[in-house]
Amino acid sequence: MFKDQVVAFAMGDPAGISPELAARLLTGEVADQAVMLVLGDRRVLELGARHAGVELDLPVLSAGELGDARPTRSCLVDLGHCDPADLQPGVASAAGGRSALANFRLALRAADAGYADLVFFTPFNKHAMRLGEPAYVDEIGFINRTLGTTRSGSEFNVLDEVWNARVTSHIPLSQVAGALSAERVFESLRLTVRTMEGAGFSRPRIGVAALNPHAGDGGLFGTEDDQVILPAVERARALQMAVTGPVPSDTVFMRAVKGEFDAVLTMYHDQGQIAMKLIGFDRGVTLIAGYPFPIVTPAHGTAYDIAGQGIANPNAAQKAIELGLKLAARATGPRDDVAMPTFAALAAGALEGGPPG
Amino acid sequence: MFKDQVVAFAMGDPAGISPELAARLLTGEVADQAVMLVLGDRRVLELGARHAGVELDLPVLSAGELGDARPTRSCLVDLGHCDPADLQPGVASAAGGRSALANFRLALRAADAGYADLVFFTPFNKHAMRLGEPAYVDEIGFINRTLGTTRSGSEFNVLDEVWNARVTSHIPLSQVAGALSAERVFESLRLTVRTMEGAGFSRPRIGVAALNPHAGDGGLFGTEDDQVILPAVERARALQMAVTGPVPSDTVFMRAVKGEFDAVLTMYHDQGQIAMKLIGFDRGVTLIAGYPFPIVTPAHGTAYDIAGQGIANPNAAQKAIELGLKLAARATGPRDDVAMPTFAALAAGALEGGPPG
Repeated sequence: MFKDQVVAFAMGDPAGISPELAARLLTGEVADQAVMLVLGDRRVLELGARHAGVELDLPVLSAGELGDARPTRSCLVDLGHCDPADLQPGVASAAGGRSALANFRLALRAADAGYADLVFFTPFNKHAMRLGEPAYVDEIGFINRTLGTTRSGSEFNVLDEVWNARVTSHIPLSQVAGALSAERVFESLRLTVRTMEGAGFSRPRIGVAALNPHAGDGGLFGTEDDQVILPAVERARALQMAVTGPVPSDTVFMRAVKGEFDAVLTMYHDQGQIAMKLIGFDRGVTLIAGYPFPIVTPAHGTAYDIAGQGIANPNAAQKAIELGLKLAARATGPRDDVAMPTFAALAAGALEGGPPG
Repeated sequence: MFKDQVVAFAMGDPAGISPELAARLLTGEVADQAVMLVLGDRRVLELGARHAGVELDLPVLSAGELGDARPTRSCLVDLGHCDPADLQPGVASAAGGRSALANFRLALRAADAGYADLVFFTPFNKHAMRLGEPAYVDEIGFINRTLGTTRSGSEFNVLDEVWNARVTSHIPLSQVAGALSAERVFESLRLTVRTMEGAGFSRPRIGVAALNPHAGDGGLFGTEDDQVILPAVERARALQMAVTGPVPSDTVFMRAVKGEFDAVLTMYHDQGQIAMKLIGFDRGVTLIAGYPFPIVTPAHGTAYDIAGQGIANPNAAQKAIELGLKLAARATGPRDDVAMPTFAALAAGALEGGPPG
């Protein structure tokens, strides 16, 4: 059903399990569900295939050979920018980080230009990315810079039947309360509902985590729950969204796990991450939504400790692609109204790090 | 081994499972391990015995009959202040809250005066306690007022092999960062180590949770982890304490559950509670330490929904008493140097709510 969709498939950190994961995915069943536009270095993917013990059957093109049309069958665009011989397995390096960032940059711009319907990436190593580009902080900031947008997206964590969305993310805890507003909480609720509807939920039930202990306990331990979060919840409910809260954050995930909520909206990074990791989120999927196309990746990391052993489990990565395909199917399709930049120009810009050529 | 120890046993909220829990404990094996000085209303305890289906065999005394000596065998001091006929099961009431607070107040003062070595209480209902005494905020504040001390204690949550201590507790999240100092984190570490040594650990391994996402990620997401928590950890390590951190709070509990840490020190209320409740903390024990005697209670609440059905599980309450006995055995014993106020005077003061007579 997604056969016409194109996945901009960015190869992640070459020193971890990303190469073998990519090889396994590209020879697995998810590869039959859409066109995979794989962005990376041929030599890295071939190494991954050897580690995974699989035979790749994927046309290898240069960026120029892709011309200016969406691909109609899976292929690897060989950027020729990363020789595995220069890397040590399991060690973060500037060269590895730079190559992963170039792949990701190209994937984002390719999707933005209409070459692909979603972006998927195998795990990144943040340390390597900072070695490669010292200004790198996190994915959201990088995506915004790459797409030249100030409309910031939002990260969702999806584990089995529980979704987690957050209002704030990578900021100091001391700044969380000040960063919240009824407007911002409401916008997060709306984005969560829309995103989950895109994933097939008809009326997702969302539990909203309180900010303060015991949800502020009637104002004794802080006023934000009553004065900021509650108005946002009431506004969402008035629009027929199935939203409950603020719920004390030490019970909201238990209620979600028991089936009472499809998603939990948390106010800050660790509020959700503490719970999701305990529940087993490393088996889950990370989705970055709020852009014209979905961006998905497995929740687990580069797993340097098992790199090259061929034992990396592709399940979470496969679920990530499947979720991205579902979401993309409901998003706007490729833009017919504007001429696409040539893929070669996009690739040249992505390798330089500057704006697309 | 604890036979000489005296437990000041405060009966909790009479409308919940407290009465039947008390009856079950007083006829169970924990009752043989120490002298139980039960503080409450005879009629409430008798109702609990009927609900639990047990036969109580406990001398009933008035406060005056206890004189001014530590009891040498278990007994109920009947305060005659709470008639179950005036209460509705499963409903919070001012009368119920007031009676629980009087029991707790008397237990604290009895232990403080040397009548008992520790305080145990069956679950309270906070709503009822506020109906009874509108100034009631939480246990720590109540204990401080009752004992006339400003040296605030600290709450520990103990679940199977994992302890959780916290640096701050019932304050707004916006105030957490400002409330932390290296001195305060270090004092919490020291109290945690001493308390756990009292419970039998020889060199407890403590993981210290970071305040900010990714432990501040080198200062990108906040400076407190490097500038406040790390110096406290280093000071503790210099004193040979087995302390690790700051550890990102979304992994520190996973490492504790896997056996790497005996305890996690968290910076704020929900940081620990989100994790502990997911792990199953309702089966655990709450300990309030930092006073001359330990104060223990089961982690679960009054369970109004199953009150009176005789199905309340006394395991957590029993573990609470056992932990308190262990800790009290290492604490200072009864004070020989000062004359004890008569128990009747203590009881009169506890019922009035004012200072001991």
